[in-house]
Amino acid sequence: VTAPGVLTLLTDFGPGSVYVGQMHATFACLAPDVRVVDLAHDVPFGGVEAAAYVLARSWRRFPPGSVHVVVVDPGVGSDRDLLAVRRDGHAFVGPDNGVLAPVLDGALARRVENRGWMAEQVSDTFHGRDVLAPVAARLATGADWTHVGPPAEPTPSDLGPVVLEDGVEGRVILEDRFGNLVTNIPGALAEDVRRRTGSIRVRAGRGVVPGLFRTFSDVPDGEPLAYVGSGENLEIAVHRGSAAALLGVGAGASVLLEPGRR
Amino acid sequence: VTAPGVLTLLTDFGPGSVYVGQMHATFACLAPDVRVVDLAHDVPFGGVEAAAYVLARSWRRFPPGSVHVVVVDPGVGSDRDLLAVRRDGHAFVGPDNGVLAPVLDGALARRVENRGWMAEQVSDTFHGRDVLAPVAARLATGADWTHVGPPAEPTPSDLGPVVLEDGVEGRVILEDRFGNLVTNIPGALAEDVRRRTGSIRVRAGRGVVPGLFRTFSDVPDGEPLAYVGSGENLEIAVHRGSAAALLGVGAGASVLLEPGRR
Amino acid sequence: VTAPGVLTLLTDFGPGSVYVGQMHATFACLAPDVRVVDLAHDVPFGGVEAAAYVLARSWRRFPPGSVHVVVVDPGVGSDRDLLAVRRDGHAFVGPDNGVLAPVLDGALARRVENRGWMAEQVSDTFHGRDVLAPVAARLATGADWTHVGPPAEPTPSDLGPVVLEDGVEGRVILEDRFGNLVTNIPGALAEDVRRRTGSIRVRAGRGVVPGLFRTFSDVPDGEPLAYVGSGENLEIAVHRGSAAALLGVGAGASVLLEPGRR
Repeated sequence: VTAPGVLTLLTDFGPGSVYVGQMHATFACLAPDVRVVDLAHDVPFGGVEAAAYVLARSWRRFPPGSVHVVVVDPGVGSDRDLLAVRRDGHAFVGPDNGVLAPVLDGALARRVENRGWMAEQVSDTFHGRDVLAPVAARLATGADWTHVGPPAEPTPSDLGPVVLEDGVEGRVILEDRFGNLVTNIPGALAEDVRRRTGSIRVRAGRGVVPGLFRTFSDVPDGEPLAYVGSGENLEIAVHRGSAAALLGVGAGASVLLEPGRR
Repeated sequence: VTAPGVLTLLTDFGPGSVYVGQMHATFACLAPDVRVVDLAHDVPFGGVEAAAYVLARSWRRFPPGSVHVVVVDPGVGSDRDLLAVRRDGHAFVGPDNGVLAPVLDGALARRVENRGWMAEQVSDTFHGRDVLAPVAARLATGADWTHVGPPAEPTPSDLGPVVLEDGVEGRVILEDRFGNLVTNIPGALAEDVRRRTGSIRVRAGRGVVPGLFRTFSDVPDGEPLAYVGSGENLEIAVHRGSAAALLGVGAGASVLLEPGRR
Repeated sequence: VTAPGVLTLLTDFGPGSVYVGQMHATFACLAPDVRVVDLAHDVPFGGVEAAAYVLARSWRRFPPGSVHVVVVDPGVGSDRDLLAVRRDGHAFVGPDNGVLAPVLDGALARRVENRGWMAEQVSDTFHGRDVLAPVAARLATGADWTHVGPPAEPTPSDLGPVVLEDGVEGRVILEDRFGNLVTNIPGALAEDVRRRTGSIRVRAGRGVVPGLFRTFSDVPDGEPLAYVGSGENLEIAVHRGSAAALLGVGAGASVLLEPGRR
């Protein structure tokens, strides 16, 4: 199957928001034959790191030719740039605030400046609708992307964890509806620490969580576990429960991966 | 580009609700080639004014030929009428309770009465699914709209603010996920007061908010501001914060626009 | 109209979740011409009974040829089976934990075991994305369903209420955004009790609710009522209010249907 590219939409607007609906309106007008997928709308308000993670773990799942629109933009209306990025047959548009960091490696980037590709009236508080959506629709329908604006040097951004001598210091970047906590620690790094030190545990909030397990049912009901999640980062969960509630933490909280008791 | 019309859906069902899913089922059966856009599902329960505002600020963004379904219907099952409205190439269906007020000016309206266009069984509590969705699907696929029912006289509805001698008395009609407060005061009216009085401020809840600013970053982090929002009404926000939390108010709260200190 | 089948998605992931978005990504790759409908994403975490109810009341509303994906799967990664079911021209995939119970009667069932139909890498915590979505996409695009795996004997599951001598003992299975409470008592059963005993009332939480009424406006504002809902089960609501708040109960709570005062 060679599926056609789609438009994806990743925002912190909250599901069911009219802000999402109005972006779909633009897509319906300018890219009526392109499928639109709501990638996620529940990342935390201004959650640049969470959005970057979601994008990193999702974009390759879509068909080549897809255009990914990211609107987590607390600096809207300030002088931050808007970027258009091309990489491996996919295109990306979003603010230059770190949300596109995971796709910048080896990518081409341009500043979004072509006034003729934007809405006739551009509001000062909703560039997602008035700039990013029409630009993305044009990219998704075959417009020449070099017309979007001049080449850009995106602002560098380091969202990774800190690797210590025998552990890793990271952060919770996402809390899902189940109270599962997704950290910024790549699963491969956690597996590496375990290989070197024999076993690992994770300190987070008011708890110390054993790991690495394979899946929820590897521990009794109500018990916490650390595991490599479906997004390939280290996650903390409680079997049929909420890690966020048990540990008393959420997005932004510190997480310390360390060797288990020896 | 001449994009085909779409079906839009605006409800107070909450995102992810099966009520939304079942309306999409009807569209999938009766209008399989028409794109469906979820305009918004997070307006407050029974929020007629909020839905009217969302509709007013959104319908012209969709392609001509679109059919807009509004289901904010606390009186479902009582003797309120259901309306079908035509205006400027768009069609609208919804209860006669004020949600369609913004599109009635110069519009044609009919009562929805054609039993043959409705579901075989019409429940007493979900006319959105059993009446409005099938009627909208028929309108979106080219049925003759005069068959929907006899001409109607919609109930008049005044949702506007009260213009005072040197200010405006309005209300918060929507609180978004960020805690931004959308008022029922048109931005043009606020700009008018400023032009006449030199400067303005807005009283809401436990605060007095300076205005008019252009965008969030025009004030320091954590500070409130009044501005003309992306929906063209007066809004109140806090830069990287929540106006709803700072001021202690939400949808329905009184707002007083007055001259600034002179 | 003979509408083509669609893919429907019913989960407890919460609306706006990236888990939903990633399942849509698989559909966009493997079934690019098939419409996708989000049936519901707000059923309670692990709410097998709620999901079964939503499925039971919704699947026949979609066109024949549709494939329904149900991901309410608290046992993901354990040894529970995944099932593919065919009935009356529709197909269903989901875990063998009761969510598919309403469609098993007279249906053909197979275990999902064809590794070649799954994602290349199958995570231990997200079979919805890595197994059910690609299998559903294949079924929706005409693959021979006997290739999904060997015939299965689904685990029996009884989610019904208990019929007493002069009443019915049931449970709340869903609380909607309005605070309406959907019970597991079929409306026909409630009507039956009323026919035999003259009148009925419903005990739930801290209240006794009169019934059966036709619709919300049959009682004064703020008053509770029992009625047969749009899903054909007994429901409890408050006219322009929240039954969940008034009665202090939610999903899982006991409900006793009994004769009214005589």
